[in-house]
Amino acid sequence: MAEQYFIGVDVGGTKVAAGLVNSAGEITHQFRVPMVATDAYAGLAAVTSAVDSVRAASNLYPESKDSIAGIGICAPGPLDPLTGVVINPPNLPGWRNFPLASEVSKAYQLPVRVDNDGNAATLAEALWGAGRGFRNVFGATLGTGIGTGIVFDRHIYHGRTGAAAEGGHVTIDYHGPRCKCGKMGCIEILASGTAIARRASEQIAAGRRSSILEQAQGHVDGITGEMVGRAYLAGDALAKELLQQTAMFLTVWLGSIVDLLEPDVMIIGGGVASMLQPFFPEIRDQLPSWSVNPHCRDIPIVTAHYGAEAGIAGGAALCLELGA
Amino acid sequence: MAEQYFIGVDVGGTKVAAGLVNSAGEITHQFRVPMVATDAYAGLAAVTSAVDSVRAASNLYPESKDSIAGIGICAPGPLDPLTGVVINPPNLPGWRNFPLASEVSKAYQLPVRVDNDGNAATLAEALWGAGRGFRNVFGATLGTGIGTGIVFDRHIYHGRTGAAAEGGHVTIDYHGPRCKCGKMGCIEILASGTAIARRASEQIAAGRRSSILEQAQGHVDGITGEMVGRAYLAGDALAKELLQQTAMFLTVWLGSIVDLLEPDVMIIGGGVASMLQPFFPEIRDQLPSWSVNPHCRDIPIVTAHYGAEAGIAGGAALCLELGA
Repeated sequence: MAEQYFIGVDVGGTKVAAGLVNSAGEITHQFRVPMVATDAYAGLAAVTSAVDSVRAASNLYPESKDSIAGIGICAPGPLDPLTGVVINPPNLPGWRNFPLASEVSKAYQLPVRVDNDGNAATLAEALWGAGRGFRNVFGATLGTGIGTGIVFDRHIYHGRTGAAAEGGHVTIDYHGPRCKCGKMGCIEILASGTAIARRASEQIAAGRRSSILEQAQGHVDGITGEMVGRAYLAGDALAKELLQQTAMFLTVWLGSIVDLLEPDVMIIGGGVASMLQPFFPEIRDQLPSWSVNPHCRDIPIVTAHYGAEAGIAGGAALCLELGA
Repeated sequence: MAEQYFIGVDVGGTKVAAGLVNSAGEITHQFRVPMVATDAYAGLAAVTSAVDSVRAASNLYPESKDSIAGIGICAPGPLDPLTGVVINPPNLPGWRNFPLASEVSKAYQLPVRVDNDGNAATLAEALWGAGRGFRNVFGATLGTGIGTGIVFDRHIYHGRTGAAAEGGHVTIDYHGPRCKCGKMGCIEILASGTAIARRASEQIAAGRRSSILEQAQGHVDGITGEMVGRAYLAGDALAKELLQQTAMFLTVWLGSIVDLLEPDVMIIGGGVASMLQPFFPEIRDQLPSWSVNPHCRDIPIVTAHYGAEAGIAGGAALCLELGA
């Protein structure tokens, strides 16, 4: 039997990445094109351009083109994974109730599945990555925001309308700062890359000295999460404090996730996760203070297998949800 | 075909209740006996005494005795629902790693399933009560503590070791007071009946005037959640404030449950729920401030069908998990 291939597409606000992925979750080719966000059809053209490149490359292996089982697309939410309609993503202002799945399906005569990046990335981890062999998988991507996914028995848990697994907006401090999501003290407003940068700026604006400011060339408003990460590696005290506090926030949050879901594994990916790597042992050690689960320390907290390619792998993984 | 019956048993710290339940979830007979908590075998004798009464009553319908499909037992946690072993419940000090399911099964030659009350009560609601016809059900019992259950497709979601769905210990305020579970600011320490009583006592001890104190005959330490409920009905201002704040805590909590699980229905039962009934519309109205789910207001928040008999019905419902 010829091997089955999937095309995974990662639609972002500034670029579209597409890749050819085999049934072991290996990305054999990938291409990136800039996103044109003026309107949905210009955006669709960017998507098809990336997919065309993947299909052209797949011609190198004549047998593979015939065995492309489908196209899976990670797109910014809110969207309806059941119909493949993108509703009104803040990052893609021209897209409004755009039937992305059916338009792409029409273009290629292939089945297409669309889902958000948190769900798709967690599915890819569960099928092919750090969650392989685990039944109940919780995945989190810590980046500019915090995306999460829940996978049970190798299928995405979608909830009532497909809007479940927005774990990034679970509140851990109802007195906390207000997120752009409207909620106060959700984990995203406290522990995302953006939140780390904001907390650094606040401290520095209040007079705290730190080498973070030099990295931002003296502009408090120019501080990013990455700068805090670099300052930590260079021994900066404020940066250490900020990352330690971030680890504490994440521990509180993961404790609640454990108490509610008791997953078999928790997979943490994204840029902020790499930055927090040195604090993972602390998160594991402190988890029993924030979970009632007597076995909470036995739940592996692991780093995601897919890094920058999580969107492509996630898209490809969605092809296994076709017909589900 | 003869109708199938189940025996549901509710094991508490001070009493054991058992009932005969038909396949529509109707409790046709029930009995209560005092719990003898000196040791596990005395406790077992209390359980079998209650079950014996139910079986004797079922003799009134000669055909029914032969059609008892099993015995389901709600017991205090921590316990292992997969093996039916009760681990070390704080309410039943004599029970330690007691194989309750196998002991009861031996006594009656019937299959036995044991689970905690949150899981069992939610299953009964999903099968026969307020959750009938819904796929993803979240249930909460607000009483002395807060117990919760998650039922997907008419089966309890157990997680890795059977310790999932401890939603009562999800933290909404990591600065908050410390619960006896060890966590700070979990919903139980803020919104259970015990918590309402504690918050009332604190306010009154700090000089706040309220008719609650008269109900407790002047003893701040004697205040209970029920007294706050009665004082509210009598127009007491502090009681109103306390219940309103409790409703706000529950809204924050339910918002996070919605964001993570997006259930098809949320079922609220227990004594504190009855007390909070007048605040349910407020909880529904405020939910969008504490959930990112655009459809959160469409999720029904309903009162549990089973009241004081939730344990018997829950126990009986567990019989449908036999072999699952």
